[in-house]
Amino acid sequence: MPRAVPLRPSARSAVPGFRVMEILGEVERLRARGRDVVSLCAGEPSGGAPAAVARAAARVHERNEGLGYTPALGIEPLRRAVAGHCARWYGLEVDPAQVAITTGASGALLLSFLAAFDPGDRVAVCRPGYPAYRNTLAALGAEVVELDCGPGTRFQPTPELLDAEVAAHGPLRGLVVAGPANPTGTMLAPEELAGLAGWCAAHGTRLISDEIYHGIVHTAPAGAPADRVHRGTSAWEHDRDAVVISSFSKYWGMTGWRLGWALLPRDLVPAVEALAGNVSLCPPAAAQLAALEAFTPEAYAEADRAVEGFARSRRLLLDALPALGWGATAPADGAFYLYADLGEQLARHGSSLEWCRRLLEAEAVAVVPGLDFDPARGHRSVRLSFAAGPAAVEEAVSRILRFQSRP
Amino acid sequence: MPRAVPLRPSARSAVPGFRVMEILGEVERLRARGRDVVSLCAGEPSGGAPAAVARAAARVHERNEGLGYTPALGIEPLRRAVAGHCARWYGLEVDPAQVAITTGASGALLLSFLAAFDPGDRVAVCRPGYPAYRNTLAALGAEVVELDCGPGTRFQPTPELLDAEVAAHGPLRGLVVAGPANPTGTMLAPEELAGLAGWCAAHGTRLISDEIYHGIVHTAPAGAPADRVHRGTSAWEHDRDAVVISSFSKYWGMTGWRLGWALLPRDLVPAVEALAGNVSLCPPAAAQLAALEAFTPEAYAEADRAVEGFARSRRLLLDALPALGWGATAPADGAFYLYADLGEQLARHGSSLEWCRRLLEAEAVAVVPGLDFDPARGHRSVRLSFAAGPAAVEEAVSRILRFQSRP
Repeated sequence: MPRAVPLRPSARSAVPGFRVMEILGEVERLRARGRDVVSLCAGEPSGGAPAAVARAAARVHERNEGLGYTPALGIEPLRRAVAGHCARWYGLEVDPAQVAITTGASGALLLSFLAAFDPGDRVAVCRPGYPAYRNTLAALGAEVVELDCGPGTRFQPTPELLDAEVAAHGPLRGLVVAGPANPTGTMLAPEELAGLAGWCAAHGTRLISDEIYHGIVHTAPAGAPADRVHRGTSAWEHDRDAVVISSFSKYWGMTGWRLGWALLPRDLVPAVEALAGNVSLCPPAAAQLAALEAFTPEAYAEADRAVEGFARSRRLLLDALPALGWGATAPADGAFYLYADLGEQLARHGSSLEWCRRLLEAEAVAVVPGLDFDPARGHRSVRLSFAAGPAAVEEAVSRILRFQSRP
Repeated sequence: MPRAVPLRPSARSAVPGFRVMEILGEVERLRARGRDVVSLCAGEPSGGAPAAVARAAARVHERNEGLGYTPALGIEPLRRAVAGHCARWYGLEVDPAQVAITTGASGALLLSFLAAFDPGDRVAVCRPGYPAYRNTLAALGAEVVELDCGPGTRFQPTPELLDAEVAAHGPLRGLVVAGPANPTGTMLAPEELAGLAGWCAAHGTRLISDEIYHGIVHTAPAGAPADRVHRGTSAWEHDRDAVVISSFSKYWGMTGWRLGWALLPRDLVPAVEALAGNVSLCPPAAAQLAALEAFTPEAYAEADRAVEGFARSRRLLLDALPALGWGATAPADGAFYLYADLGEQLARHGSSLEWCRRLLEAEAVAVVPGLDFDPARGHRSVRLSFAAGPAAVEEAVSRILRFQSRP
């Protein structure tokens, strides 16, 4: 139909593309041509959900009833189960009325950002960091402030970095942190998170703590309680005004189920409930019912066995570092990522993006270039996901070594 | 933790509450006390998904693999299947690359609004209408323009209404329409939708057409093609710059599955893909795989039998109207709603909200007050959903008659 006035997409939808999409497109093409590609790209476990969760989902679908809309913040038993999980892992007493079940951690981030921040609000994120924080905040009109978090601060923000930012450009309405973080795997020690929470309390800043990788922990930080397995430090151990984001995706291996949660400060509960009822209606019903089975000793044990697999893969990768001869890596405390500076490889290939392209072409190993996580310095780095397991990691390492030894 | 600066929710999260939540809360209380409540509130079928869809979902969960992240716009086979569905129902040729699979129609609305509109853009919606349109648009910073759509225009917008709005307050960047609409069930005839699409083309206005109730049609409008069952008129029959929103929720009875789709104009595909990858990652994986079974002749036949059930319930309700003695009702062309002015009942009870409260108290029949859909005139109206089936409708009518005959 001829239009008098041409239409165009919104300005806010100009989200920067991910370099990894180009890599993944090439992976598809190579696989279609029969190449045996080893992909260390995906940030997702491959083992499936705990068996009892999968069986429960199969059962509710066989019955094919009771899968209508649920309350906007999720079914009561699951809200109570998440509160119980917080008691088990952190010793926290959580009111189930402050637990919002969401459509993945993505849904929790979206609703929290909408409920906590208005257009124009300055919200700080870490660089390097998960790109959806800045892209979603920007789409919602927030002014995204990138904190340059390098090796000097273990790739995490500090009160000093925040002080400098505020002194230079003005107050911050929000701060998004993650530990273990994506892409670095680096954790926040209890006293570091306490320091950030204290800074936020003193500066009128809402802390958003993404704890989606909790439970996938390889080295407990100094100061972690010695009387239980360290699962990560929750922001709610230090600040009940914080929003805590988490999910069934990573520890329980349920990425495609799209089920997560937020712990909400009391003042945000009505806002998130009203927004959720309009923006998403409710999280997936069958996933909610099945996820009740994620909190049994057996399901925790299954998830912990998957974590042991990640630990083996991580060890393989760390042991290969001297032979790989790269530069510094971020402390891979948790999650299933190694974020590495390519060091001398850069002299030969120019940038990590070019290195990734050539590695894929020559040896069919797929790795994510750092620019997706750090627009400023990511041209030096790559993120290797070891979620694919020890065999994939071993094969990838040997191919990378062969690639790097070519004349 | 003591805060130097108090925190507060964002201004944009001040979404008006739904009156129906008060009614639903009272329903819970009454049921807990053993009352036999008949609810005509829920806008959802109760029959479950088509059997083959439910079986497929059970199967993928039993296998417990392949349920990781999917592409942001959904799996290719499902995008192709939706394109085929558009050919079957509307005779439309649709490029699967323009089909976005989404987390329910809610996800499709959110992504479309983000991709098409910037903060401050004026976007028109109908009053009465589905409240999530205006609440989501407002949360995203759009200026919501309510078009007063009364019985004179069959509760739908017209080019004349749009002309008057533009003359009075300036241009419109977007227009959201729905047919069959919620709460009225009123449809747009082909030439009416063509007229609105033509108006949008002439005025630089993006048309968003919510077609979630397509397939649930009780009376085909004048001008509908005679050679096939009328499923509703799609905006894409008239304007490929429009965004079409739909879902598996209503016709196929899959509300809690959270699976929908959008047909996207070519200029919005990259924007929606980039936004989806950040804001939601992907729609639920198991639901996508299972929904492939929704497009078989058997599944269509099952869904059509559910529609026949809605038609019987509708007939019961329409036949009872003379005895109920209310005022005018909206033309209940499709969906499973009757939107009625309470007429003389208002003189006795003051408002439809009060009528709803007293009806629930006296006879345990739950109905949604019109104020949720029309802040201006909804105090006169109620929405009755007949999705609950003929038995519930029959019982509700007899109780309402008893309520109204009390001295």
